[in-house]
Parts: sequence; C-alpha cells; structure tokens
Amino acid sequence: MSYIQDNFLLTTKTAERLYNHYAKDMPIFDYHCHLPESMILENRPFEDLWELWLSGDHYKWRLLRNYGVKEELITGNASHKEKLLTYCKVLGTAFGNPLYHWSQLELKAFFDCDLEINEQNAEEIWENCNRYIKEHELTPQKVIESSNVAHVFTTNEAFDDLEVFEKIAQKGYKFQVTPAFRADKIMNIEDENYLTFVGKLGDVPTLDVLEEKIRERLAAFIAHGTKACDIAVQRVCPVASREEAQAVYAKRMNGETLTQEEQDAFKGYLTYFLFKLYAQNSLVTELHMGAMRNNNTVMRQAIGLDTGYDSIGQDDSIQNLSRLFDRLHTEGTLPKTIVFNLHPKMNMELMTLIGCFQSEEARGKMQWGAAWWFLDNQEGMEQHLKDLTATGHLGAFLGMLTDSRSFISYPRHHYFRRILCSFLGAKMERGEMTADEAFVGKVVQDVCYNNAAAYFGV
Amino acid sequence: MSYIQDNFLLTTKTAERLYNHYAKDMPIFDYHCHLPESMILENRPFEDLWELWLSGDHYKWRLLRNYGVKEELITGNASHKEKLLTYCKVLGTAFGNPLYHWSQLELKAFFDCDLEINEQNAEEIWENCNRYIKEHELTPQKVIESSNVAHVFTTNEAFDDLEVFEKIAQKGYKFQVTPAFRADKIMNIEDENYLTFVGKLGDVPTLDVLEEKIRERLAAFIAHGTKACDIAVQRVCPVASREEAQAVYAKRMNGETLTQEEQDAFKGYLTYFLFKLYAQNSLVTELHMGAMRNNNTVMRQAIGLDTGYDSIGQDDSIQNLSRLFDRLHTEGTLPKTIVFNLHPKMNMELMTLIGCFQSEEARGKMQWGAAWWFLDNQEGMEQHLKDLTATGHLGAFLGMLTDSRSFISYPRHHYFRRILCSFLGAKMERGEMTADEAFVGKVVQDVCYNNAAAYFGV
Amino acid sequence: MSYIQDNFLLTTKTAERLYNHYAKDMPIFDYHCHLPESMILENRPFEDLWELWLSGDHYKWRLLRNYGVKEELITGNASHKEKLLTYCKVLGTAFGNPLYHWSQLELKAFFDCDLEINEQNAEEIWENCNRYIKEHELTPQKVIESSNVAHVFTTNEAFDDLEVFEKIAQKGYKFQVTPAFRADKIMNIEDENYLTFVGKLGDVPTLDVLEEKIRERLAAFIAHGTKACDIAVQRVCPVASREEAQAVYAKRMNGETLTQEEQDAFKGYLTYFLFKLYAQNSLVTELHMGAMRNNNTVMRQAIGLDTGYDSIGQDDSIQNLSRLFDRLHTEGTLPKTIVFNLHPKMNMELMTLIGCFQSEEARGKMQWGAAWWFLDNQEGMEQHLKDLTATGHLGAFLGMLTDSRSFISYPRHHYFRRILCSFLGAKMERGEMTADEAFVGKVVQDVCYNNAAAYFGV
Repeated sequence: MSYIQDNFLLTTKTAERLYNHYAKDMPIFDYHCHLPESMILENRPFEDLWELWLSGDHYKWRLLRNYGVKEELITGNASHKEKLLTYCKVLGTAFGNPLYHWSQLELKAFFDCDLEINEQNAEEIWENCNRYIKEHELTPQKVIESSNVAHVFTTNEAFDDLEVFEKIAQKGYKFQVTPAFRADKIMNIEDENYLTFVGKLGDVPTLDVLEEKIRERLAAFIAHGTKACDIAVQRVCPVASREEAQAVYAKRMNGETLTQEEQDAFKGYLTYFLFKLYAQNSLVTELHMGAMRNNNTVMRQAIGLDTGYDSIGQDDSIQNLSRLFDRLHTEGTLPKTIVFNLHPKMNMELMTLIGCFQSEEARGKMQWGAAWWFLDNQEGMEQHLKDLTATGHLGAFLGMLTDSRSFISYPRHHYFRRILCSFLGAKMERGEMTADEAFVGKVVQDVCYNNAAAYFGV
Repeated sequence: MSYIQDNFLLTTKTAERLYNHYAKDMPIFDYHCHLPESMILENRPFEDLWELWLSGDHYKWRLLRNYGVKEELITGNASHKEKLLTYCKVLGTAFGNPLYHWSQLELKAFFDCDLEINEQNAEEIWENCNRYIKEHELTPQKVIESSNVAHVFTTNEAFDDLEVFEKIAQKGYKFQVTPAFRADKIMNIEDENYLTFVGKLGDVPTLDVLEEKIRERLAAFIAHGTKACDIAVQRVCPVASREEAQAVYAKRMNGETLTQEEQDAFKGYLTYFLFKLYAQNSLVTELHMGAMRNNNTVMRQAIGLDTGYDSIGQDDSIQNLSRLFDRLHTEGTLPKTIVFNLHPKMNMELMTLIGCFQSEEARGKMQWGAAWWFLDNQEGMEQHLKDLTATGHLGAFLGMLTDSRSFISYPRHHYFRRILCSFLGAKMERGEMTADEAFVGKVVQDVCYNNAAAYFGV
Repeated sequence: MSYIQDNFLLTTKTAERLYNHYAKDMPIFDYHCHLPESMILENRPFEDLWELWLSGDHYKWRLLRNYGVKEELITGNASHKEKLLTYCKVLGTAFGNPLYHWSQLELKAFFDCDLEINEQNAEEIWENCNRYIKEHELTPQKVIESSNVAHVFTTNEAFDDLEVFEKIAQKGYKFQVTPAFRADKIMNIEDENYLTFVGKLGDVPTLDVLEEKIRERLAAFIAHGTKACDIAVQRVCPVASREEAQAVYAKRMNGETLTQEEQDAFKGYLTYFLFKLYAQNSLVTELHMGAMRNNNTVMRQAIGLDTGYDSIGQDDSIQNLSRLFDRLHTEGTLPKTIVFNLHPKMNMELMTLIGCFQSEEARGKMQWGAAWWFLDNQEGMEQHLKDLTATGHLGAFLGMLTDSRSFISYPRHHYFRRILCSFLGAKMERGEMTADEAFVGKVVQDVCYNNAAAYFGV
C-alpha cells in the first residue's frame, strides 16, 4: 500500500477540514495547458499505462535521464512495458521529486491503484492499471470528466485549425474546451522554420500584412470562445519602433541573417503589438518568461523540441517589463495580464511590479500566475504562497493550472489545494489569523475556482 | 475578539520567556524613518482613525489596489469613513500579508481595540477607535511616547529647515528627534526638478560649489545632532572621475540633455564623494539600494511620488559596491555603513561583501540592515535572520527600524522582536544552541536596542 | 556541558534511526579539499589547539572580524592563547552561524571535550584540548583516520610537485590521498604573477606550447591516480576561438596590458580546452563558479590571498555555461562534471541546466555539487536538498565534501548526514514518502559514500 493517506500534505486538523469542506469538491478551471484538442475530439480509448503516463511527458523523461537511464528506455525503441518498469524502478527512490508524489496520486485517482511505485511493484502496477484501462475503456473524455473539470484552455498557434473546437462543443461533454491564442511561432523570427510558420497564414510579405493576418486569426479565435492569449519569451525585449520591426521583418523575408539586436527589436515590438491587440479585444494575456530552451542541440535534432532539454535562464527582464506595462497603461491598452516566471528570484520582482498596475477593472487585474514548471512542486508552491501573500492579496489569486500535456495531471490541482489549506490551517492553529473557518473557506473556494471563473468571464 | 494573543508569533515556551523577560521592555531606537518632523513639533491631536491609519500609508493603498478597489476609495474623494470601511473589508481576507498583522497589532496597541478587522466589524472599529482618539486626545507625541521610543532619526534633504529640530528639542519630549542627512535630490541629476532642488542651496554653478554647499549643510546637520546619513539608489554606479562629474554637471546646468552614461557617471562620483564626506565626519552611512521607482507614469502624474508604485529591481550593483568600498577603504575613508537591499537575492551578496570590510573600529562596523520594505514581513525577517546568522554574527546586529511614514508603526519593532525570540527559542528547544537563557537574553537585548545605541553613539 | 546531544539535528525518531543504522558508519569520500599534502606526509604532531583550529581557517577569521575583533588577535602577533580565548568568547554568541556548530562538534570529535564554547569556558577548553593533543600526540594521519576517511582529493596546481603523493602512498595510511588537477593559475592571465606561474612549467612562449605542457602535466597527475580536475572561475566566459586566445597569450608574454575582453576571451577558450582535455582523459571536472575574490585590496597586500576577503558575486554565467556544455556535448567531449555555485539564486539554474546533459554514461553524469562555502551550513544544505530533489534525483547525488583547509573538518560530513536523514525522516513521518526504512537507508548510504566511489571509480 502506498504512503498516500486521506490527510496527505494536510499538516493540521484545520487544514483537513478546509480541504474536505471547502476545497475538494470545487470544479477545476485549467486556464493554461497543452492538451491536444484533436485527441479530446477523437476520444479514442487509451492503449496502456505507458501511453497515458509516459508517452508524452518530458518531466518524467528528465527524471530518468538524471538517473542515467538509456534513452532507448525513455523515448527509444524499448517496449512499453520495459519503459514502464524502468520508470517505476527509478521513481521508487526519487524522494522529494514532484513526480514521486504526482505519479502516486495519478495511479490512485485514475486506476484505483494503491501500490507503492517501485521496482518490486512495477509488474503488478503494469498489469493492474492496464486491466483497469481496458475494463473501463478509459478515454480522454472520461478522465477529464472524472476529474471534475469545468474549463480547459488549450494553447494554439495562430494558424491552427479551429474546427476541432466546434466539433468538441457538439459532443456534449461536461467540460468546455476553448483555444487560447498564441503567436509565438510568428514572433520567433530567428527560428529556422519561421518562413514556413508565417506561410501558414498565407502570403505575408510585410509586417503590415502580418499584423492584419494576426488580427484576422484572433477574430476567428474569439468567435470560437477564446478568452485568453499566451506569450512565451526567454526574456522581455525593449519595445522597438514599428519602423525598426518592419525593417527586420523585410530582411528576414529577404533571406538575410539577423543580428541578435534585430531579433530582439522585432520581438520587442511584436510583444507590444500583441499586448495592445489583446487589450483591445478584452482578452487576458498570459506571459510566460524565463525559460532557456533547447540547451542540448544533439537531442533537439534527434527527438525534437519540448522533450526535456529546457532550463531556467538568468532573467533580467524586469525593467523592460516595467516599461512595457507603463507604456501600455499610459496608452490605455494594458490588458488583464497573468505573468509566470521560471526563475524563482523573479517571484518578488513580479509581484511588486504588477502591484504597480492594478486597477478597479478587476479584482487582481494583474496576476502573478501559479508556480510554473520547475517551480511547480511542493516547495515551489509553498514559496509562491509566501511571496504572493507577503506582497499581495490572497483573495485575488486565480490559483492553480496544470500547464500539462497529460490527460491525467489534474491531481496537481488537488496537490495545490492541499498545500493551500495547510498554509492557511497552520496559520490558524498558530493564532496568526482568524479562526473563522467558514470565512476562510470562502477564500479557499475563490482561489480554487471562483476567481478564475470571474476573471475569464465564462 | 481578534486572533492576537500574548504569545503571538512566539512558537515555543522559551521564545515566550525570551520575549517577556528580555525583549519586550527594551526602548526603541528607530534609526531610519520618514516621519514628518513638523507634525511632531506641531503635535496636533489626530482627527480620526483614517488620518492615523490610512492617510499617508502607501503600503495599505497598494493592498487595496491589488484587490481591485477604486482609487476614489483609496486616495480620492470618498469620505474618511468609506475609505476606512473599505480597508477593513479588504484586509479581512488578506491572510499572510504583513498589513493583516500590523493593522491588528496597531488597533490593539494604540486604540485598545481587540476587534478582528473585517467587513462585519468595520463600523464598530471606526466608532470605537475614533472615540478613543477623541477621549485620549491622541497626538504624535503621545503615540511615540507610549511606544517607549528613545530615538527617532527622520530623513531630511540637504536643504531642509533644521530649526524644527531645535524647537522639538525644547519641548521636553521623552524621545529624541534627530535629522538624518540625505542628498538624494541633489544626486538625482536626471530629475525634471533638479535645478529647483539645487537652487534651494543658493547659486550653484559648478560641481565645486555644489560640494561646498553640501559640506556646509552637513555641518549644519551635525550641529543639530545628526549621526547618520542616507543614500538611496536604484543601483550603485561605478565611480567616475571628478572631471567627468564636473562636465556632466556643467551640461545639466546648461540645460542640455544627459545620456544614461552621463547620469550614471555623475551619480557614481557623487556616491563616492558622499561616502567619503560622511567618513570624514564620523557619520554612519545608510545605503538603500535596488528599488525600481515610479513604474506607473499615469499615477505619478496624478498623485505624485511615493504613493505605492515602486517595485523590486533586478540588482547587479554588487561588483560596483565592492569596488566603491575597496577604494574608500584603501583611502582610509570608509564610514560605518549599513546596507539595505530590496532584492532578496542580494541578501547573501551583501552579507558576504560587508564581511570583507569589517574592522576593529566598531562591533559590526559594516552592517546589513533590517529586512526592508517588501521584505519587511514575517517571512522576510525570518529569512533575514537565517542569512545574517549563516554568514555573520547575530551579536553585532543593529536590529529593527520602521522606515515608516506612520506614527503608529512601532509595533513592527515588537513584531521583529517576537520573530527574533522565536528564531532563538526554537534552536534552544531543539538543542541547537546553548540553553542558558540569561546569556541568550543579553544578546536579544543588544539586538533590540543596545547595539544601535553604541553604534550611533547617542 | 555543551548543547550537543546524540540526536543533534535529528528532528524525528525516523531520522535518528536512519542516521544511526545507515549513515553514521559509512566511510568518508572527500572529493574536493585544500589540505596541504606535505603536512599529511610529514605527519608532525600538532602543537596546540590554535594550530589545529585557528591557524589557517579564514572562515573563523571572518567571524571574528564581523564582531570587530582586532586583526592582531586574528592573524597578527597576539599569542596563540589570546587568540584562542578571543575566538571562544566571540563564538559563544554566534548563534546560527555554522561555526557555532562545527567548532562544538570538532571539540567533541577530536579532543573529547564537551565544554560549551564561550568566554567562561575558554581557559578550560584551551587547557583540556592542549593536554589531549599532547597526550594523544595528535597528527594529521591520526585525525584523518579517526574520522573514517577513505579518500582525500587534494587540490593541486599543474606545476605542483607530485612526489609527495608517492611518498604518502608508501606510508600505509588507512586512507588514500590523490591530487586533483587544477590549472587556475595558468588560466588567470590577468594575475600580476602570471608569468611566474607559467614559468614553473618551463619555457612557454606560445599557447601551443602551453597546451602541450598542460597535457604533459595532466598525464603526470593521472600517473599518480588523479580522478578529478578542478576549475574555479568568477564567471564562465563565452568560448573564444583558439586564434583569439593565441593572440591574447602572445600579448601577455610580450608584457602588454590586456583589456577585460581579452582576458575573458583567453579564459573562455582555456575553460573549453580544459573541459575537452579532461573528457578525453575520462576525468571528472569540478567547476566552482561565482566567487568575487579579493574585495579588500589593503588586506590582500597585508596578509595575502584566501584570508577571508571573498564574497558572492552576481552571477550571470548560466547562458555561457549552457553553450559550453552544448558545444562539448555536440563534439562528444563533455566530461563527467560537478558544478558548484556560490550564489544561491543559481541553485535552480544549475540543477535544471545539468538535467539537459545527462546521459547513460553514469548515474548522474552531470552533478550539482554539495552546498559550497557560504552556502555550506544548515540552512544552505536544507535548501540544497529541497532544490536538488525538486528538480533531480536524490539517489544519484554524490553527497558531501569538506572543501576545507582544516584537518578536523570531517564532522561536516556528519552534519550533512544528519540533515539528510532529518530531511527524509520528516517526509516519512508526515506520510510524504515510503515508510520502508531499509529501502530509504540504502539511498542514504549511496549518497553518503557509494555514489561517489562509483562515480570516481576508485
């Protein structure tokens, strides 16, 4: 039997009550994730535990590599079963790693499996879970619905096909699936495939046309219910003039090589353009900053992007971000914004900066997003709550999201909720805040779901 | 009844004894604050709770903005009572925010009010506290004296009127009020009002004259008992030559626009000049670094500076600071210095740097100041104590200050003292340090007051 | 009697069992230190407690300076006894400082002395310990052997004499002493003594010859059992071309002054050259980064390098390090590497970066080294374990080293082991990981010793 009990992560009796009476049953609003909408539509039953658990999760791949596992047993040609047994073995001693908890929670939540994950139990886990998958014909729809999910925002490039979302809407699922608009591939002008990406928008000879195409596509997204847009950058570049950006774009179209400064100028201008456009359309902007991507060229060439070779960059964006926000605010076009940092030293930079651009437009117009990626773990969430409350208002927080490529990552919402309840429960029992549980419970429910629902207006 | 009990923040029995037997009754030495000396002199009875609590405290304003409150209810035309009720409502759910604690402590300490601050109790708080203010004719003097304050260092620009301090001295208050010298407005050469500020010193055509005027004003301050000087910079600039600074100053006087490099050169030189001058006069230098100020242009123009629109900058000053200290030390003119960082990632940079310039001139000649501004909270203070003790000597620490614009912020000293006693008490009960309470209590008293008194020589 | 009990730092019963049953008796693998091999060979009995404790330990000197002690009583002409009494007095109130614990542990471990270190007990400590030293004729060999040390890697410059190691090997000590190769003095081209250092390798007119000499010396080291190399840099410089490095070296040989850019170019190239060379020889590279050295010029001139005047630099190396690793990896010459950061904000940068270059060559080929120098303390180790496990695999970790100049610093290994056991024990008792103690104990033993032995292949 696994170590996970009902009071998992609930460090006080008050925390247990807060979780069980207020947090546990709130629906989930997953306002940023990378689920493939086509799989939601297709709703094909999953084949085996490997597919659901390991086939697309580069977090797990990294952990295996950290332990010296051969790539063959990770993304290579080994059998599903071999890969699964290897993962169970390695995870068994990964004490303190978030996957150590998450994987165990996932086994319990989706396959009713209480076996402790380790080498000894690996065979039995493989058999029991596969049997469960077959018997229950687990599909994307079933796992999402069983997780009490109300809203899913997928992340889609400007040129993605939106018809899928219409078809999903007709399916009558108990949850909504809405695309979030992302123009990153249009922004990353240094990418070797840039012309291909832009080409998907049609003939785009100039920046003027590009902007027009982006506007058109955004309108199409909005017609499909889009409430949020996403921008992911390694660093926020200073805002260059439109003329500079036009010239850089022209050079790129002309096949010329761009300097780092030219790339930054283009990105700086386009970031500004996009924020402004999103504000004009009353959309929420989600800004992800600070990832240093694709460190390992060999593996990028071998197995592609987003396969576990990114890391945390030294982020010096904060002054540029201040100037961007200030300019947009001065021009009356600062959208509701959620900022996510990958470098933990930015926690306090961001919280104090967004505090300078709050307004009566919304409770928490400017948001510091949930602990992201390498920070999305027990320690990172606890630190997030400390930093958020030390410099802001907990009652305005939008709470958790998954940012996941996996259909069974929803227990992370409960992981967060347990940590939130323990954070508050401990303060209550230490006499550091009100003892009124119903009053506190209302704030817990707001953070779990209500705030996000109000913020995105769904 | 509020949640605050006698053992608030005191996590062990040992901590309770340390606080009650050693810390609680020590006087307060507030070695850096922004109290308006004219109000101390005038000593007019306060009008109502809003004036004392909310009229000038941009920490509270920020919290309200974070919750989406209209500016009208913060700094606008709403009535005092409406503003007060709004604050109580919003604070009620600001769990974890330092104001959640501080405001509750202030109600208890100054208005004998135990009501938990929230929407439901707001009316009663407004009425009870206002009644208390009237009945006791609360004045600045009364609240300061009731707080057991011994020394207050206000912060004054070079051109400020010092007669006020003479008049205060004649009043026979139980506490001393002394101006700390600050030349920031003279240093910030990019400021649109720079010529106006410099003009307050008379006719100052050249840097030579400016230096002479600064020397004269400093002498006047010293004649009024000044023991400390303050320098606040976003970043420490490299020390430029006197010739460069002269040329930049001449350009500014001539109405020319300065480049960023020229501004930095002037500031770098003047920082050096001021440190040297302070050393020559045996004054303590308090250096505040890392604030990114006035992020929000619209609000600066609408309601002015220091209204809650500053944030934490990405601070890369440490190498320049090392070179500044090294040069001054080599020239024999490094003053006793207290450094305050706004970015938490500088904690360890600063503690380890100042450890390179200690000397027998004083116990803890070079000081890492108390957790400042956005770090001045429970988590920040605990981290401060951990970082300070991990790399330095607790027994040399000067302890807490308020850095406040509010007359009723002194409970923060007790907040710090409780955290200090819990920090030590926990170690004692865990068997991680001596169990000799009287011995430890002496160190607690030194940190609470004695060290500051010896350091400033009052 | 001192505060240190058997369960010191062991916060749960499970932690006590883990430590006593699994950790305590594991041998020590000290894979990076600064012990003087000549003293190990000579094996002269120590003179008194001052020599063993204070004569060469700049950590202790710093603490004294932080408290305002005169240099005469630290490194000056005061008597050994006066210096010792002063240290005991100052240490007595250094609550929270790692030396407060380490010194107490050292008294117990090496001199069987349980007296609490403070002013009152100072005389008795001086007498008792000196008596013990005489009675037991304590020598380097005895203290190392009594510490259950299996392997010591000293740190040696390329031009150091290696005969000492042959002679030590013939002594029949119970521990191995092996030199780690370090080319820092050859790399630091800006050093005023650079030509002297290079001259120790013979006539080295060009970079080509320098590289050849380095190769020769490395071969000699390998013949003496070398398994590891060390590189210490303030920051990782971008990799310059060989041609650039050749030109810079030629200028330096020619007596010309180098610009900062030229220095960086040389260092960037040589770092790359050394990593490559180490990979080709299957050696482990230990990279120490982020120290800002010799801040205090006066004291450097007065008492020399490595005397307690270094601090933590603002480190922006991570992008350059990514590119270096990527290039080496692409060229198939990335060695097993251990990275050590001095700035705590790099913890997560490094852990996530090395995760991008793991491979099946070894379990944890790329290692994040133990908490180093200013981070080598209770808080730093706890944070290290949190950050390591949050983003990597505990079971692959190499564990502790001393990095010390002192023969009696081995209790730090036990200090780490206690913290490790408490880290795990607390999770076990909170139901956050498996309750199988034997299973967890095996991982503890791996981290204490087995992983290092396998990694270095001794």
